[in-house]
Amino acid sequence: MNPKFPSTLLENAVNELSALPGIGRKTALRLALYILRRDTDYADRLSSSIRALRHEIKYCRDCHNICDGDRCSICADPRRDRSIICVVGTIREVMAIENTAQFQGVYHVLGGIISPIDGIGPADLEIDSLIQRVATGEVKEVMLALSTTMEGDTTNFFIFRKLSPYDVKVTVIARGVAVGDEIEYADEVTLGRSIVNRVDFNDSLKT
Amino acid sequence: MNPKFPSTLLENAVNELSALPGIGRKTALRLALYILRRDTDYADRLSSSIRALRHEIKYCRDCHNICDGDRCSICADPRRDRSIICVVGTIREVMAIENTAQFQGVYHVLGGIISPIDGIGPADLEIDSLIQRVATGEVKEVMLALSTTMEGDTTNFFIFRKLSPYDVKVTVIARGVAVGDEIEYADEVTLGRSIVNRVDFNDSLKT
Repeated sequence: MNPKFPSTLLENAVNELSALPGIGRKTALRLALYILRRDTDYADRLSSSIRALRHEIKYCRDCHNICDGDRCSICADPRRDRSIICVVGTIREVMAIENTAQFQGVYHVLGGIISPIDGIGPADLEIDSLIQRVATGEVKEVMLALSTTMEGDTTNFFIFRKLSPYDVKVTVIARGVAVGDEIEYADEVTLGRSIVNRVDFNDSLKT
Repeated sequence: MNPKFPSTLLENAVNELSALPGIGRKTALRLALYILRRDTDYADRLSSSIRALRHEIKYCRDCHNICDGDRCSICADPRRDRSIICVVGTIREVMAIENTAQFQGVYHVLGGIISPIDGIGPADLEIDSLIQRVATGEVKEVMLALSTTMEGDTTNFFIFRKLSPYDVKVTVIARGVAVGDEIEYADEVTLGRSIVNRVDFNDSLKT
């Protein structure tokens, strides 16, 4: 579909909106017409929030999480355990892990994972700054929490090798059958990992 | 999911983006993080296009289609037949019909259809201005092209009644089995209308 737009203002808005991931031209048109129907206040708020987000956002000097100030609220929290660092790809994983309320340590956001197809190598990620944090000697454990993909595994292994000279425990989050899932429908690799990495029943009752 | 946001700037952007139709909070977060990854230029263009769309858009004084100037490009086009008016709910239908290149007349955009559930009555729509256009005597045919829903049918009938004092032909776009559809899978109502409104075979070859 290549519709003729009755207005260049509309066409511009549709062009910019459809550049967003998962937003096609039809959806972009629907969004633009919705913005037109709402009051001007909403368009102003939406427009300002996008501009402010991109221009004023800051990154935590310690963990590279996004934040409003110099350090993120997690790194600035004195109750967090700075001896354990959870390594994640993006801030979405930070938010997902924070929602579990199961992790009391601090994070390190790589800014992605190693992916030769997308042209992302180790130098594009915050790996050196992770090594520097470990080199201070304060860190006792580095917990890798990257996606279970080939790229995630590659990144895990790269970081593991880089950390080998240091006296730090490197762990990786458990992989296994999801809570609520039926055993018979789990894929073999996941089920296999569940079995190999089985835990003491008493420990499993703790969470 | 009620994630803790590491930044109020991010939270604001997610709040505003998730107000858009069909955009939930998870999708809004994905869009916001995408905007963060792109250069500042893109955020500026997106932000400006939204603001300009809402503040600078104009509506055609004749058909209420959106446009950049005083009249839309269709109404301003001297080649369009001003004796036939196609009545549609929103400008999306204008764009859909223009894409067919089968209609040479002009439009009248109601701005919605009568829907008591949504609190939209005849007074909220551009029906009076349609009657005024017909009252000038220049119009020979009014073609109704609203959605085939109960609301669309109600609106059709309301307009039909309003137009009854005037010497104007009122038509409605044909309903029937879609081009490319199999007869056996068509619903009964649609197939029934296809049969009742059958056309001369010679006429069917024209388009």
